[in-house]
Amino acid sequence: MIGTDRYITLKRYVLGGCLDSGCFDVRERQIPRPKDGQVLLKALALSADPYMRSRMTGQDNFFLPQYQLGAPIESLGVARVVESRDPNYKEGDLVQGLVEWADYSVWNGRGKLDGGGVLLPLPSGITKISHALGVYGLNGLTALFGILHVARPKPGETLVLSGAAGGVGTIAGQIARIMGARVVGLAGSATKCALLVNQLGFAQALDYRSPTFQNDLETSVPNGADIYFDNVGGQLSQIVMWQMRRQARIIECGQISTYEDPSGGWQVDIRPIHAKGLRWESFTTAHFQELIPGAIAQLKVWVAAGKLSVLETEYHGLESAPRAIIGIMSGGNIGKTVVNLTADAA
Amino acid sequence: MIGTDRYITLKRYVLGGCLDSGCFDVRERQIPRPKDGQVLLKALALSADPYMRSRMTGQDNFFLPQYQLGAPIESLGVARVVESRDPNYKEGDLVQGLVEWADYSVWNGRGKLDGGGVLLPLPSGITKISHALGVYGLNGLTALFGILHVARPKPGETLVLSGAAGGVGTIAGQIARIMGARVVGLAGSATKCALLVNQLGFAQALDYRSPTFQNDLETSVPNGADIYFDNVGGQLSQIVMWQMRRQARIIECGQISTYEDPSGGWQVDIRPIHAKGLRWESFTTAHFQELIPGAIAQLKVWVAAGKLSVLETEYHGLESAPRAIIGIMSGGNIGKTVVNLTADAA
Repeated sequence: MIGTDRYITLKRYVLGGCLDSGCFDVRERQIPRPKDGQVLLKALALSADPYMRSRMTGQDNFFLPQYQLGAPIESLGVARVVESRDPNYKEGDLVQGLVEWADYSVWNGRGKLDGGGVLLPLPSGITKISHALGVYGLNGLTALFGILHVARPKPGETLVLSGAAGGVGTIAGQIARIMGARVVGLAGSATKCALLVNQLGFAQALDYRSPTFQNDLETSVPNGADIYFDNVGGQLSQIVMWQMRRQARIIECGQISTYEDPSGGWQVDIRPIHAKGLRWESFTTAHFQELIPGAIAQLKVWVAAGKLSVLETEYHGLESAPRAIIGIMSGGNIGKTVVNLTADAA
Repeated sequence: MIGTDRYITLKRYVLGGCLDSGCFDVRERQIPRPKDGQVLLKALALSADPYMRSRMTGQDNFFLPQYQLGAPIESLGVARVVESRDPNYKEGDLVQGLVEWADYSVWNGRGKLDGGGVLLPLPSGITKISHALGVYGLNGLTALFGILHVARPKPGETLVLSGAAGGVGTIAGQIARIMGARVVGLAGSATKCALLVNQLGFAQALDYRSPTFQNDLETSVPNGADIYFDNVGGQLSQIVMWQMRRQARIIECGQISTYEDPSGGWQVDIRPIHAKGLRWESFTTAHFQELIPGAIAQLKVWVAAGKLSVLETEYHGLESAPRAIIGIMSGGNIGKTVVNLTADAA
């Protein structure tokens, strides 16, 4: 295919502050050409995820390389094969994997990112393409493995969940509720809190930006939380740790509050852990690769039965993609954040 | 009993530096008089433990009050009842519990310290009074619960142990060895390391003060440690965390390196935890109170069978007690540190 392609690039790194639209640019290039063993993809939907922010600081971090200024940003996405020079794929195939934030990108057959190095077929029978990125993708799988295999809430236990209105949080909290836990969600606005209780069936939701938050939490978990499922980290998590019962457990799933923090966001004051004999456990979906098929099947059953609601914040068009990541970091989004690039993606 | 009593007191707090003998004083007072419900004790052996250092900083901490300047220091100890105004105790009873660093002290029937609020009989059949404070006391119980109930090493797993030559470490490492783990001890001198391997049967021991330590550790655990049993904390522990396999577990038992540290010794860089999906677990013996009788019985069996060697650094006489805690903090002591006050204690 010959023609002009558009892509999103980062113009400058931002460390210790907020991203804004001036950090990004839409540029043009020739549609890239696939070589032998490669595949040309037309993107249908792009995933925007908090971890991407930590690739925009200009500061080496410990898990992923920085995006190159001027080069296309990359993320997980859903795409259609438009030209294949790999016998395993044919024109028209719908696939998911690592793509560029561009109308077209070449999948080069090499792994760049944990779990992103392969093109996978979409899960069968999904009603919306973006669900492959959210509830049946990295977010939903992280939530399921984190709750069922790491947190393992018992019926009646109180699970406090930070980032509760986010892509992982909305699903993690519902799975914990299905397993019989009393779920207390922490989110950044009254609107989000109302939604968590009314639409997702959380027992309670607390606005961590409220001046009375610390008291609200104490009232909500008078005997201390049994489990803290943490997507946020930083100061919020330190407050929660002091409100846990002895020998309670912390499941660290993400640390979004640290991704824009230049100084020691990854420093945790372990005194509450020591004082209360807490257990802290981190995990990623990479630890559970073998369990993905069953996990997707389980999520589908819950969605079909109406037990698991799927929330998305959707952006439309390639040029809206920077706003998607900005929206996540500023706390404006609810559920999975996705960028739909074609009408048939919606 | 009427007469003059001697006691050890702290003259000044030291934060951010090392204790020295000028920080302590031996003072005199009248032998205290027990009231109804109280018991007069003659101390036979005093325990010196790292946690005591954190009560000598002058800075509020989160688990125990500061010692009062001019007042007797207190610790766990073994004593004989010399006068009883409590029907539960009679003259001549040998007991253990919280005592003052003095020849005589009054047990006032009220709890001051977790687990120290009661006077307990000595375990039966022990060959040395100080063993009630070490292998059958706080140190041995902490080691046993930490290894058997928290770390739970499987045969063949590699357990890295910091503070390996200390009161808890020497016992924890041996129990892990008995359970089939490959134990790699970390200690602060070549002498200690040789002893851990030759006398206690550790697979390896590494001097963490060696300039080649980081490489030595990497060579010792080429596939990463399965378990890190940590008595030290601080910079040493950060190095170890990066040398663990994915989903390995950290058992935090103590953080001696932080007890003299005025600034952020309790701050842990969680990046290796996040990156490797590690589990961090803290505990104290207080969580396992119900299991103490069986634990002591088990330790006795291992000691009698020659599977568990008991190492002590012994001081003699009340006036030597300050040197006991100074010795612990400067890394000069091996095994349990105890102060024997009478010839019959040895």
